[in-house]
Amino acid sequence: MGIHFVSATADEVVAEMEIAEHHRQPYGIVHGGVHSGLIEAVTSVGAALAALARSQSVVGLENHTSFLNAVREGKLRATAQPLMRGRRTQIWEATVTDAEGRSVATGRVRFLALEAGASLAGETVKVKESSKS
Amino acid sequence: MGIHFVSATADEVVAEMEIAEHHRQPYGIVHGGVHSGLIEAVTSVGAALAALARSQSVVGLENHTSFLNAVREGKLRATAQPLMRGRRTQIWEATVTDAEGRSVATGRVRFLALEAGASLAGETVKVKESSKS
Amino acid sequence: MGIHFVSATADEVVAEMEIAEHHRQPYGIVHGGVHSGLIEAVTSVGAALAALARSQSVVGLENHTSFLNAVREGKLRATAQPLMRGRRTQIWEATVTDAEGRSVATGRVRFLALEAGASLAGETVKVKESSKS
Amino acid sequence: MGIHFVSATADEVVAEMEIAEHHRQPYGIVHGGVHSGLIEAVTSVGAALAALARSQSVVGLENHTSFLNAVREGKLRATAQPLMRGRRTQIWEATVTDAEGRSVATGRVRFLALEAGASLAGETVKVKESSKS
Repeated sequence: MGIHFVSATADEVVAEMEIAEHHRQPYGIVHGGVHSGLIEAVTSVGAALAALARSQSVVGLENHTSFLNAVREGKLRATAQPLMRGRRTQIWEATVTDAEGRSVATGRVRFLALEAGASLAGETVKVKESSKS
Repeated sequence: MGIHFVSATADEVVAEMEIAEHHRQPYGIVHGGVHSGLIEAVTSVGAALAALARSQSVVGLENHTSFLNAVREGKLRATAQPLMRGRRTQIWEATVTDAEGRSVATGRVRFLALEAGASLAGETVKVKESSKS
Repeated sequence: MGIHFVSATADEVVAEMEIAEHHRQPYGIVHGGVHSGLIEAVTSVGAALAALARSQSVVGLENHTSFLNAVREGKLRATAQPLMRGRRTQIWEATVTDAEGRSVATGRVRFLALEAGASLAGETVKVKESSKS
Repeated sequence: MGIHFVSATADEVVAEMEIAEHHRQPYGIVHGGVHSGLIEAVTSVGAALAALARSQSVVGLENHTSFLNAVREGKLRATAQPLMRGRRTQIWEATVTDAEGRSVATGRVRFLALEAGASLAGETVKVKESSKS
């Protein structure tokens, strides 16, 4: 989707995305799926970083996105912060703002924490760090 | 996202999408945002068609997507059906299945119905038909 | 809340509730929280029964309820069925109908499955069967 | 449910509730439906007060509650604040804390704003103020 990560830690993730023609639905406003996807992206990175500190990985369970204001153009900025980072699950919240700083969408994503070695879709989960080596 | 609409009426919408490399997150499974976006797309088309019959248009309020099974490759198929098509709001439900017919995600999207002439993001809403003319 | 369980298995749970004065908000219609609570109740019983067969218990993670039609009086009937009963999480869906059979609310609840012996709020989880002995 | 409102304006609503035996599910922790109901209650009052200033009333569309921590006893406190108070819809967020100040549940409720005179469940909507007279 053309997401640029500005900063990412286990406490906060910030990303930006320039609205392009293919992000708009027929009425000319940004498609809701773009907001859900952006929220999924920033919360996933945050949850994965928090999980990594425990040698865990995460998989998304539920994404609930509320659309607040229609937006047509400019740069979107998404900021994610944790609501709860447990050993079994995590919840992160993210808000998307437009170029004028208005909140245009906000959502919460619940993640399941997986121990290294857990099976997922027929493959063994590796924590991110070890998969880089 | 490369969505291909197979059929679309005010009663059911079916679309397909071939999983590509950019749909996957680092663990190699399809990103949750892809499912939320696909669900938003098929439900939006159905709700817009149902609204059109009343000279209304729709705008998404809430997208709630549940992730059921991890999927890595192949063709995704999303099928949307209405739960309620009211004069003020509509709710549509969509389920995404993989190439083997397993349900991989399911979601519900709530839409606000707008009368023609309503103001949205600083512009006047036209119903889809008239905007084509 | 005065919920009467009609039937309950790991495949389907049905419960009924007579609308009483304290279930109504000031406009005279049944309070949304009653629907959310009823949906939580029937889905929880179903998920607990499905978990019990694996010597697991469940705890709710997310309850998402959509309100479809306002209802003022009569008997409510809630029917819950599983969307997914995994070893790690379960999702159940429930729909509430009124005395005329109209759907008035529908919701989905995600549950985390816990192994016997897991710690929850400072106490050890026992599976339901053993806690009866 | 035994909810006591501490304060209520169009900007913030606070309520408290003492946990009683009938609020607990079989494992001894507070039932998720209690949290959803408490969140519905405080957000509804806030949205209704904000609507009243425009001679509107509100009806709930979606309640999405996330359960954060299990709680067994003591006083629950719910605080609701608006995320968006539009002319067509409102979104309010509420968090429930326990006696030790831990967040135990958090949720968002979307409301549809109705003009006075709108029809709801076969009756004409009156704004709250006029219904008191």
